[in-house]
Amino acid sequence: MRIAIISVGNELLKGDTVNTNASYIAKKLTEIGHEVRRIIVIPDNVGEIADEVRKASQLYDFVIVTGGLGATHDDVTSEGIAKALERKLCVNEEVYEYLKGISDNEFAVRKISSVPEGAEIVWNDVGAAPAYIVENIAVMPGVPEEMRNTFEKILKRFERLEYFQEEVRVDGYEVQILEELNKVVEEFPDVEIGSYPKLGYVIVRFSGKNKVRVKKAVERFRELLGKRV
Amino acid sequence: MRIAIISVGNELLKGDTVNTNASYIAKKLTEIGHEVRRIIVIPDNVGEIADEVRKASQLYDFVIVTGGLGATHDDVTSEGIAKALERKLCVNEEVYEYLKGISDNEFAVRKISSVPEGAEIVWNDVGAAPAYIVENIAVMPGVPEEMRNTFEKILKRFERLEYFQEEVRVDGYEVQILEELNKVVEEFPDVEIGSYPKLGYVIVRFSGKNKVRVKKAVERFRELLGKRV
Repeated sequence: MRIAIISVGNELLKGDTVNTNASYIAKKLTEIGHEVRRIIVIPDNVGEIADEVRKASQLYDFVIVTGGLGATHDDVTSEGIAKALERKLCVNEEVYEYLKGISDNEFAVRKISSVPEGAEIVWNDVGAAPAYIVENIAVMPGVPEEMRNTFEKILKRFERLEYFQEEVRVDGYEVQILEELNKVVEEFPDVEIGSYPKLGYVIVRFSGKNKVRVKKAVERFRELLGKRV
Repeated sequence: MRIAIISVGNELLKGDTVNTNASYIAKKLTEIGHEVRRIIVIPDNVGEIADEVRKASQLYDFVIVTGGLGATHDDVTSEGIAKALERKLCVNEEVYEYLKGISDNEFAVRKISSVPEGAEIVWNDVGAAPAYIVENIAVMPGVPEEMRNTFEKILKRFERLEYFQEEVRVDGYEVQILEELNKVVEEFPDVEIGSYPKLGYVIVRFSGKNKVRVKKAVERFRELLGKRV
């Protein structure tokens, strides 16, 4: 599936928080053969959440949203999702009852248990706000531990597709392996080949749906490089 | 200024690399009073780079693009930028001459020194590919050391606006400070107040253009919390 990740939160746009949630989710989805096509970071703003989620929900097969499910004034993600889908926000009775058991703050309990009408709840074992799925959108809390706990459960819904990846590390500079790289790219159009220069070495990554072809491309690249790898 | 950051690279969408470049850039811009409105991660694809850059260049005051300036087949950012702006890609003579001095790979030298017509070069002291500025777009290499080196120089062009930020850490859960938080949010509509729950504590961040008001909001919040902070 072609997937978009939407990360909601002013703290991400201010650079106070590094978006490790998005890379965690992307890695897990890639490993089972799905393709993340966009990661979009947006502010805690109902209108902007609604616009981006609506667009992404139409453009991609599935949309994963994180952040903004808490009880404070800046937690407006569910409102944005409801607006995007033209659904009402409704108190989920099961969530409400559960939260009433651990907090007597009526305002917070009502706010956290309000989800777009018809959403399916995904329980959160490490925090208060549950995740949920509505249409082709999964919505999870932004606290990394809570995201991972709920994402584990959501991930089980995704079919595991064939996907293989292998890396070659070459010392030196990218410019020194250009010819070999271009040759293998040309010979293996069905294998995705990425070249990632680091300081003093280069990581060349081979990936694709056909294990034999990925392995053959790596072999061919090593052969072309000869003694250098 | 309202700014968008566009991070180009399949490795980001696969979750192999955490997007620390975007948070670094966002933090530096926020510190001098500018506002990052979007961070968008897109694949190494000419058409998609052109589309996103064109849209962002129209929607925001300034656009910062990182990644895809090298010499390999998957480095297509400059092609995308040129397409977005309907400019030709031209070899920059100064860059060409400089790179010829350090490499005899004509293909790589021509590719790296090809930038959208009229772009202003920003030299890179730690790697081969220079950054550049064209219209309201700055384009930098994706290797973090090279990004930081060139971003330092680009940052000097941005005016320093007034901006102040202060944090309060409160032990416990967000739900326990909701009342105080809502009160201070209501009393200080001119101060941006963000609440970031962690495991076992909450960071409440106050920011804005008026130092006195930011400080007053913090004081008022501490007063409302009483002994708890």
